[in-house]
Amino acid sequence: MGLVETRTARLFTPDAPLELSGGERLDEVIVAYETYGTLNDAGDNAVYICHALTGDAHAAGMHPGERRPGWWDNLIGPGRAIDTDRWFVVSSNLLGGCQGTTGPSSINPATGEPYGLDFPLLDMSDFVTVHRRLGEHLGVRHWHAAVGGSLGGMQVLEWELSHPEDLDRAVLIASSSRLTAQNIAFSAVGRQAIMRDEHFNEGRFAGDRTPDVGLSIARMMAHITYMSEDAFTEKFGRSHQYGAPSRGFGVDFAVESYLEHQGESFLTRFDALSYLYLTRVMDYFDPFSRPGALTRLRQHPVSNLVISFDTDWRFSTAQSRRIVRTLESARVPVTFREIASPWGHDSFLLPIEPYHATIKAFLEYAGVREAARHG
Amino acid sequence: MGLVETRTARLFTPDAPLELSGGERLDEVIVAYETYGTLNDAGDNAVYICHALTGDAHAAGMHPGERRPGWWDNLIGPGRAIDTDRWFVVSSNLLGGCQGTTGPSSINPATGEPYGLDFPLLDMSDFVTVHRRLGEHLGVRHWHAAVGGSLGGMQVLEWELSHPEDLDRAVLIASSSRLTAQNIAFSAVGRQAIMRDEHFNEGRFAGDRTPDVGLSIARMMAHITYMSEDAFTEKFGRSHQYGAPSRGFGVDFAVESYLEHQGESFLTRFDALSYLYLTRVMDYFDPFSRPGALTRLRQHPVSNLVISFDTDWRFSTAQSRRIVRTLESARVPVTFREIASPWGHDSFLLPIEPYHATIKAFLEYAGVREAARHG
Repeated sequence: MGLVETRTARLFTPDAPLELSGGERLDEVIVAYETYGTLNDAGDNAVYICHALTGDAHAAGMHPGERRPGWWDNLIGPGRAIDTDRWFVVSSNLLGGCQGTTGPSSINPATGEPYGLDFPLLDMSDFVTVHRRLGEHLGVRHWHAAVGGSLGGMQVLEWELSHPEDLDRAVLIASSSRLTAQNIAFSAVGRQAIMRDEHFNEGRFAGDRTPDVGLSIARMMAHITYMSEDAFTEKFGRSHQYGAPSRGFGVDFAVESYLEHQGESFLTRFDALSYLYLTRVMDYFDPFSRPGALTRLRQHPVSNLVISFDTDWRFSTAQSRRIVRTLESARVPVTFREIASPWGHDSFLLPIEPYHATIKAFLEYAGVREAARHG
Repeated sequence: MGLVETRTARLFTPDAPLELSGGERLDEVIVAYETYGTLNDAGDNAVYICHALTGDAHAAGMHPGERRPGWWDNLIGPGRAIDTDRWFVVSSNLLGGCQGTTGPSSINPATGEPYGLDFPLLDMSDFVTVHRRLGEHLGVRHWHAAVGGSLGGMQVLEWELSHPEDLDRAVLIASSSRLTAQNIAFSAVGRQAIMRDEHFNEGRFAGDRTPDVGLSIARMMAHITYMSEDAFTEKFGRSHQYGAPSRGFGVDFAVESYLEHQGESFLTRFDALSYLYLTRVMDYFDPFSRPGALTRLRQHPVSNLVISFDTDWRFSTAQSRRIVRTLESARVPVTFREIASPWGHDSFLLPIEPYHATIKAFLEYAGVREAARHG
């Protein structure tokens, strides 16, 4: 796909602020986004990419001067599963994030200082509100599909439940409609590591004194849950970073070195407060518990593709099956695939042929609405 | 069993120091221990209890003024699975620990200051050396059994491989002969949390400035791995600590409150340096990789009972099966049981009837040596 760039749009302004579901408002919201491919005249060949916890707008293609492509480049591009020769692909950084979209590290116009913990609490529906507005801004009149893995899939689920008329297809990958107590436990310990860091300072980071220790501990711990036990064994086993054991308490086993690198490199691209805000949105997400949760979707069915990976213990197949059962109970069309992969939760980022082929076919076959239109 | 007390013995002295397997020595080693029941005249009805990572010598009975019995009181006592009417039970605190036995927080006689990180690195075989010396001190001539869960089972395995002539029976519960990369990963992140705490200070804790944040983070994270996902769901689900959601970043979900309590209460009974030393012993333990590892045991077979729990994902049934296969390959007698339990790794601490019944029967039936003696 070649070079791409991240652009920004000022989607909410003091005249037309973002009204959050919790009752607060944001007078200014800038959104960072990328697009790939071309919007057709009808404005209905668009595919929205919803990113996971630590993703960003740069899903595909290359940025000038960088050596690695976007995080989902293996999935998105000409001829790929999400074919940019056919679809107009939109990818944005999440509200509350730290990669160009307004979040807790942005300047609060009311004070001229970063928001910090004065940034309002967010809800999954707030993400959808911003996604929809970006679509309007770009001239999209109807979404061929919304696609997301992990937290991305949660956004897609929220979107189809609240505004099913926007979408033809929903693709929910390695996702969940409701975190388990164990999921919340891992997130909670990560947040504790951040908030109890000596430099947390109630979210007001003084100069370069940021809660780096806490954020890297949170990342290392979370990373363990993104891989299967077998993947760790396959990749590292009990090998030593320097060939022979060095003993002592420093980094010795290869797996320790890997995790340390994960923790350190995360600091260059992520913000501790965004980590708090976005994980909390996940913890509280439980859309099927809302009264009448499925009413709209039942009236405007969206074709669903739900995908899980057999070794994913972060968001297991059981969690995907729960989504499938609930949608089916409302007579919403659902295709479900459990994909065999040794890599655990992070499989959704990897080029696994049956996984990508399933998405490609699902996006290209006639969904319920085209079938209705052409039938 | 009533009231019991923890006693101490000075088992190694400058005249007879502890020679560690790594080549260093400790001029003084005090060991905290308890005994239950009566040693017979032959000195051969003794059972050694090896504790897990955060255990202590107080395995059974009550201490004066305390409301809760020892950590394995449901297993050990008159008429219980480890029947103190029949067996003389010995339980000690581990070398390197912090509950009365010499460890990194003890005073280094050479300096008059706590050892800190000058305490020598330990190996599983050093634990066994101290256990054996305690037995001599108490007049034990032969061990009817050594029993341990988790790290305790690793000590039992080390003991039977290095000194099988000491033991009639070995009971290895929810244990491992070799940590996986994922196991090491969890331990490594816990150690990082401790060592990167602002109060770690290279292990020289100034007054009451101890790395409490890091230690409690390490404990909270480890605790997640001690329970099964279903146990978390069963115990907490998504319920809120105060009935209704309070939102924000404080403790809200019941599971968060539980973990916070686990982290805080751990600080009152455990030392950050012991956590480093003992987890590192586990990481490096890999006895079957040693040349001729099984030679001695093949010559002096010990009757083994290996027990796993079906929902234990910390030390899974696969890890127990590896021990079983390896022992069987050396023609060592092994009984293996996978016990059904919803609670995960911590099941080894719980009064699960088939689990306790299996241990009781194993300790009471004639082992290979009695069979040989009486046959």
